[in-house]
Amino acid sequence: MPRNLSLTIEYDGTGFHGWQVQSGYRTVESEIKKALFAILHHHVKIYAASRTDAGVHALGQVAHFLTEAAIPESRLQAALTRKLPDDIAVLAVEERSQAFHARHDAQGKWYRYTVFARAVAPAIERGYVLPVREKLRLDWMRTAAKMLLGTHDFISFGVNMARDPVESTVKTLHRLDIRQEGQKIYFDIVGDAFLYRMVRSLVGTLLDVGMGKRPPESVLAILKKKDRCAAGKTVSPNGLCLMQVFYEYPAIPQNLT
Amino acid sequence: MPRNLSLTIEYDGTGFHGWQVQSGYRTVESEIKKALFAILHHHVKIYAASRTDAGVHALGQVAHFLTEAAIPESRLQAALTRKLPDDIAVLAVEERSQAFHARHDAQGKWYRYTVFARAVAPAIERGYVLPVREKLRLDWMRTAAKMLLGTHDFISFGVNMARDPVESTVKTLHRLDIRQEGQKIYFDIVGDAFLYRMVRSLVGTLLDVGMGKRPPESVLAILKKKDRCAAGKTVSPNGLCLMQVFYEYPAIPQNLT
Repeated sequence: MPRNLSLTIEYDGTGFHGWQVQSGYRTVESEIKKALFAILHHHVKIYAASRTDAGVHALGQVAHFLTEAAIPESRLQAALTRKLPDDIAVLAVEERSQAFHARHDAQGKWYRYTVFARAVAPAIERGYVLPVREKLRLDWMRTAAKMLLGTHDFISFGVNMARDPVESTVKTLHRLDIRQEGQKIYFDIVGDAFLYRMVRSLVGTLLDVGMGKRPPESVLAILKKKDRCAAGKTVSPNGLCLMQVFYEYPAIPQNLT
Repeated sequence: MPRNLSLTIEYDGTGFHGWQVQSGYRTVESEIKKALFAILHHHVKIYAASRTDAGVHALGQVAHFLTEAAIPESRLQAALTRKLPDDIAVLAVEERSQAFHARHDAQGKWYRYTVFARAVAPAIERGYVLPVREKLRLDWMRTAAKMLLGTHDFISFGVNMARDPVESTVKTLHRLDIRQEGQKIYFDIVGDAFLYRMVRSLVGTLLDVGMGKRPPESVLAILKKKDRCAAGKTVSPNGLCLMQVFYEYPAIPQNLT
């Protein structure tokens, strides 16, 4: 029986065309496959919990693959660290049960979206934040966020990708915390699963609320409409980071800082 | 009489060969001079509070220059924002007294050095931190930091630059706070003035202490020796950021977060 190994992966999305292999583009998956081939001497198929878009970062992506190789986990981690480019780091290698699947078994995911709120766009850390020059009312955004919690059909906020045709558009949001630290506003979003681009369109809609372009309760009408055009725009991938994937249920962490 | 205008400047040091104009290199000063020339239609001489090295960042650099132009401060700021590249932001333009000098009048400066302490080097924000894989004892570093506070001859920790031949090597450190947030360790250092590379060699020495390579009290011996080779190495510029320049005395801010 081959071993089922999982990787916990951190990456800077700036230099990648997203997670998934795309011929002719630099992607996280292709870099990891290349490194694994160099170490294990066989090709692997990798399954990731989240197929992040170009520009999206990760502090806790999880992926798994099968191998017959006997290399100990700690040695594989050290070898990957040596082989991989600076903008990918493997934080953990773990042997899992045969049945473990990084995507299907995920009980929840925590994404963080970071806004830099100042009249002048930031010169520093530009690849990790969305600059917002308008004043934002956190109380309005928090009121709207509360209305989005729970189980809803989120089709207005996302795309039911053809690559996942049987996926339900009904998802559960466990947490949607908004807090400010200095000029940064963090949106910490935990849900059981997310539609394609759902986090970024949720944040885009909340920013509209924060700027007074829509009232907080409009998010309920958007949910009801089941129309992608009803929601706010999909904000830039730069501000988005996959923080953690949860494999225990219920996946509602207490501390999101 | 020409107006004396000051700029408060934020920049990402990653793409610059430091502050000061150097022919053939991209520097912050040369970008600002170019932008000011395009707006004011005359060349200016700029004086900055700190001539930061290549790779060093700034959230609150201050510089001044003279101009006969009548452009209002707010319009000049907007014009600079348009003309300057993304990695420089002008946060404030202020008209000062004729006598104001950004460097000579500085009563103090606050620098922050950021270490990323983890066995695996970070994939994200690599240009803004120094990765340290060894375990660091914060208590030992804090004991050493306390001994460095006050007025000393800091020649062991810096270079008396030929470009400033009359500069005294006696400096006063007001604050040297060390705190951890997650995997980041911040060194917040406030002093009346600093020798060339002094902050980075102070941090290099404190890191030696944190790793147990030298005892905390060794910093007193280093001060006494008045020999640059006695201190720790000058750590990478990436972790360093000029946070603020103080023009009031005493320049000891209460809150360094």
